[in-house]
Amino acid sequence: MTDTATNMRLKLPIACFILEIILIILFGVLVQYDDETDARKWHNKSNSDYDNDFYYRYPSFQDVHVMIFIGFGFLMTFLQRYGFSSVGFNFLIAAFALQWATLMQGFFHGMHGGKIHIGVESMINADFCTGAVLISFGAVLGKTSPVQLLVMAIFEVILFSVNEFILLSLLGTRDAGGSMTIHTFGAYFGLTVTRILYRPNLDKSKHRNCSVYHSDLFAMIGTLYLWMFWPSFNSAVTAHGDDQHRTAMNTYYSLAACTLSTYGMSSLTAHDGKLDMVHIQNAALAGGVAAGTAGEMMLTPFGSMIVGFLAGIISVLGFKYLSPILEEKLKIQDTCGVHNLHGMPGVLGAIVGAITAALATTEIYGNGMKDVFPLVAEGEREAVQQGGIQAISLAVTLGIALLGGLIVGFILKLPIFGAPSDTICFEDSVYWEVPGEEPSHEDQLTQVRTEEADKLNS
Amino acid sequence: MTDTATNMRLKLPIACFILEIILIILFGVLVQYDDETDARKWHNKSNSDYDNDFYYRYPSFQDVHVMIFIGFGFLMTFLQRYGFSSVGFNFLIAAFALQWATLMQGFFHGMHGGKIHIGVESMINADFCTGAVLISFGAVLGKTSPVQLLVMAIFEVILFSVNEFILLSLLGTRDAGGSMTIHTFGAYFGLTVTRILYRPNLDKSKHRNCSVYHSDLFAMIGTLYLWMFWPSFNSAVTAHGDDQHRTAMNTYYSLAACTLSTYGMSSLTAHDGKLDMVHIQNAALAGGVAAGTAGEMMLTPFGSMIVGFLAGIISVLGFKYLSPILEEKLKIQDTCGVHNLHGMPGVLGAIVGAITAALATTEIYGNGMKDVFPLVAEGEREAVQQGGIQAISLAVTLGIALLGGLIVGFILKLPIFGAPSDTICFEDSVYWEVPGEEPSHEDQLTQVRTEEADKLNS
Amino acid sequence: MTDTATNMRLKLPIACFILEIILIILFGVLVQYDDETDARKWHNKSNSDYDNDFYYRYPSFQDVHVMIFIGFGFLMTFLQRYGFSSVGFNFLIAAFALQWATLMQGFFHGMHGGKIHIGVESMINADFCTGAVLISFGAVLGKTSPVQLLVMAIFEVILFSVNEFILLSLLGTRDAGGSMTIHTFGAYFGLTVTRILYRPNLDKSKHRNCSVYHSDLFAMIGTLYLWMFWPSFNSAVTAHGDDQHRTAMNTYYSLAACTLSTYGMSSLTAHDGKLDMVHIQNAALAGGVAAGTAGEMMLTPFGSMIVGFLAGIISVLGFKYLSPILEEKLKIQDTCGVHNLHGMPGVLGAIVGAITAALATTEIYGNGMKDVFPLVAEGEREAVQQGGIQAISLAVTLGIALLGGLIVGFILKLPIFGAPSDTICFEDSVYWEVPGEEPSHEDQLTQVRTEEADKLNS
Repeated sequence: MTDTATNMRLKLPIACFILEIILIILFGVLVQYDDETDARKWHNKSNSDYDNDFYYRYPSFQDVHVMIFIGFGFLMTFLQRYGFSSVGFNFLIAAFALQWATLMQGFFHGMHGGKIHIGVESMINADFCTGAVLISFGAVLGKTSPVQLLVMAIFEVILFSVNEFILLSLLGTRDAGGSMTIHTFGAYFGLTVTRILYRPNLDKSKHRNCSVYHSDLFAMIGTLYLWMFWPSFNSAVTAHGDDQHRTAMNTYYSLAACTLSTYGMSSLTAHDGKLDMVHIQNAALAGGVAAGTAGEMMLTPFGSMIVGFLAGIISVLGFKYLSPILEEKLKIQDTCGVHNLHGMPGVLGAIVGAITAALATTEIYGNGMKDVFPLVAEGEREAVQQGGIQAISLAVTLGIALLGGLIVGFILKLPIFGAPSDTICFEDSVYWEVPGEEPSHEDQLTQVRTEEADKLNS
Repeated sequence: MTDTATNMRLKLPIACFILEIILIILFGVLVQYDDETDARKWHNKSNSDYDNDFYYRYPSFQDVHVMIFIGFGFLMTFLQRYGFSSVGFNFLIAAFALQWATLMQGFFHGMHGGKIHIGVESMINADFCTGAVLISFGAVLGKTSPVQLLVMAIFEVILFSVNEFILLSLLGTRDAGGSMTIHTFGAYFGLTVTRILYRPNLDKSKHRNCSVYHSDLFAMIGTLYLWMFWPSFNSAVTAHGDDQHRTAMNTYYSLAACTLSTYGMSSLTAHDGKLDMVHIQNAALAGGVAAGTAGEMMLTPFGSMIVGFLAGIISVLGFKYLSPILEEKLKIQDTCGVHNLHGMPGVLGAIVGAITAALATTEIYGNGMKDVFPLVAEGEREAVQQGGIQAISLAVTLGIALLGGLIVGFILKLPIFGAPSDTICFEDSVYWEVPGEEPSHEDQLTQVRTEEADKLNS
Repeated sequence: MTDTATNMRLKLPIACFILEIILIILFGVLVQYDDETDARKWHNKSNSDYDNDFYYRYPSFQDVHVMIFIGFGFLMTFLQRYGFSSVGFNFLIAAFALQWATLMQGFFHGMHGGKIHIGVESMINADFCTGAVLISFGAVLGKTSPVQLLVMAIFEVILFSVNEFILLSLLGTRDAGGSMTIHTFGAYFGLTVTRILYRPNLDKSKHRNCSVYHSDLFAMIGTLYLWMFWPSFNSAVTAHGDDQHRTAMNTYYSLAACTLSTYGMSSLTAHDGKLDMVHIQNAALAGGVAAGTAGEMMLTPFGSMIVGFLAGIISVLGFKYLSPILEEKLKIQDTCGVHNLHGMPGVLGAIVGAITAALATTEIYGNGMKDVFPLVAEGEREAVQQGGIQAISLAVTLGIALLGGLIVGFILKLPIFGAPSDTICFEDSVYWEVPGEEPSHEDQLTQVRTEEADKLNS
């Protein structure tokens, strides 16, 4: 299954090598250790070892890292013949995006004398930006070449960083777990891209656009790692102390409640009451997305569970009723249903965050206000204004995602990137050397024969 | 494969929604952030960030979390046609049980002005209680509907919390890793339930009650995560400092020794010397169970290894010789062999804990006595008495587990919960939409034809 | 598939039981808790809890532990009929080696009044030594009995500890992530062993020496865990504070750059541009190996990325062009290609370490010099001398590995260890009870029939 169009022999090596060489040069020119990773600077400060940010954030970083590479990668292995590409392209574009994001975010987050300073917090932020790219990947899964994906990542990382800069730095928005910056942005960017890349004859590949028994089990590995480590995701870059602690706990309860509503809805919406793996694999995670903004706030476990409960219901309903409409009417072919897992729950999370922010009082937050809402604590802004800013931030995010997706979608339509034709979508063998499914019968016969011979000889 | 009896369309949604709504209401009325997760309270105390319990326990919590969702979930995927249910029902009942356990344990561990205070330690304890429910799930695996499992979880969490309260609060028993409270309790509760649910005609499903090649590999994912993270499990709620450190190390050596005796016994008890995956998947974990009580004590690596070594031997012998007897004579159909992995090793762990406690001296423990045996350190109790109390605690645990399992077993026999009939046990398609095993030949032919056409066109 | 030669019924149990009993006795005589795990000693020191080394190293330890048991274990499941053995023998020899390494390393690292003191750092070091054994296992994978592997582990652990002692204690070499002590040693030891065990007729088993679709996905689980946690591996035993932080970050960027060069080279060296799973599974990890020595130094992210970039290229070229030559000309049958993943990148890492050490200045390291190059900081040695010592250490490592592998290879040739004959290599059923591949058609027919009958009855 090789033809000229999809042959990557020149395109992919050129893309990988040129991108990596540019990255290396830019790192050489622009990037320095920060005060916590530089041997001289750290020892000048006479800190105690346990003050090093490494001990506050590295366990969370590793959990996030697992979500990015195992979580997203294996979640997408549900397709019967696209496991290599799901895990493998996820791996490739994540490894690229995290380097590129280090530069882009470093540039926007503020340079230090012309240099970008990096440490564990920038590593987490780079993984976060990568997460948005992988969400968009989920929308176009099976229909794009690895070169297209790298090109998408180049532009999406820039746009993500611009949006993040506007929200966090210019507007003073709070979004620790990225309901807006990561999930809403990644989803609507990806949905716009897949709309532009609409394939009217994609049903020629529909026999491959579904799962088999074992591929669904592989996908559950991805689901569970995302589910378990989401508390670390949302709490990874919040302030030290009670903030990380509270955020992790809020997310934990949101996810637990979401899981029960997902199972309930999945069974309720099936005519025979049978559970659908697509819902379990995806909708049960919506509670983590929806707690992304308000998780660090005093949402209370009670509030978190309500949010998670609603997120699960919305997500299953989206898979069941909205996705088919989006595909038929709006021509949005959303392979993984990212609109249901990241899009709607992300918007829900943004709204919950705006409301929770607007209700913040000194009575509730005490001196902790300065960690969660520094501008409110400093008297620069009322809580209600903060809530309004949060809502505006959602609109900004949607705007940049849709406009950015539109432009990038048209760029990806250029015929030079080796996209697969409609008949060979969702198929690993287009871009991978693929072994057989099972030991062949011939092999097994050979095996038995040689074994028999072996026994006679021994 | 749908019939009226097992149709979950009404039962499962009703169970999920009503349970979750009750949980949300109870959380709203009863649950508050504790001093380490509440913004106002934490900042009132002028602590250093690194004093927050989050940094002492969150890495352990995440390891325990992985054991609960990936460890238990994938360990049970060994069945050839029950992977969706193993992972999926494990996910559902764990997500329910951890919320319900937060309330029950909070109630018994002591309210604060009518409120339950929660943080990372209560999250770990809730996961522990969930572990006991999942152990019982292993005994009835393949023979119960998800609604039955939720009902079992409702009652088991209550009984677990009562037993835990009697042991830890009333008797002053030490059981950091839960040899008694988690493993002994969960195993004998589940064994009693499966005895009450005895199915004389279960052999109608016996062709499905076994593994295939790939399902055994999926199960090894569960085994290894349980094995690797058991040190975190046993040390997750011990005192800070040397206690967590020592407990993790004792458990590590107990598991290593157990693995060698498991491999030895597995080969020894097979007529052709071939290793049995069932033993490797399960018995190699018995060392973690058996170090659950004494792990935090000054058991020494030497003592830990002896315990692990014995646990592995006992466990393999149980699988090989005792389980068939239990099934034939006592009518206990123990799908996962929880008696061998959690039951006997749990009792062993309790006995080892009683002996180790009885031998405690100030010479050995120094000022560390107050962390491990506070009542002995305060002079309220002799070490020998502590040992006696530990032994009594085992008896109490067994009593509550057996009696509780008896009652709950009869409740689960009510015909309204949608249990599968004898011929359709161990079968995912009863409760799940199940895709095919492999890409069908027809699909493959279609694929080849369209590809050829595609090449001609391009 | 049982014959007398490979029947393990006596050999394996004897090996397991005798080895474990010896270990237990030696632990009883020689091993004690260190000051951070002993209740009395720790509480004598009036430390703060957070000073306990547990909190600095345990999260890294658990990541390393996952690499050893899941990472190495699943990486080797790529073979179609050797998954049980890959994961299972990995499990067995790792559980043995970590206990044995505790004793050997404790002996060489310095006894305390005739006793070996252990804690989390010794646990990490034991896992490191185990890693070297598992690398060697990769070279002989599929061609050895479990008893041979245990015997290999016995000797390799001793030789590893001798080499480590010479490097770290006698020569004052720096090698935190083990480019030399772990990777170079493990690879060239294993390659020499497999050379001695050369099988001229191994092509009788070549139909089994390849992957199937699902086995490649299982292997990707191993790859990704190794990739994600390699920053923890390299930083696990460096000095606290900036050192751990910097090492993790350098490794992270080295791996990311390596991944892009691996994808580029894999596509470039295939005539049809298709990616090869063998390269992705292995070569993408070479960046972690190559950052093993210099990772803790002020290599800068820029330098780390160059190192990773080169490592990926070298590794893919090795798989593509060098491995076939090694097999044909030098008769080295390297099942997993450990020469490409651990051998050459390990040597590269040693060279990079020597150069980076030679370039160290007080201007760059400041007071941090004492953590990275204590002998240079104390004025006992110039940086250039340190660089020279690093280079000599590589030669020492290669010498001990080659000589040791030679001797151990001949020991393993003894006919008493139950090695498989040429026709039954790469086959689980030689040493394992193996279930069928898929539910048999007969089973499925039976199933349908009983279900139909069931429906009629209900």
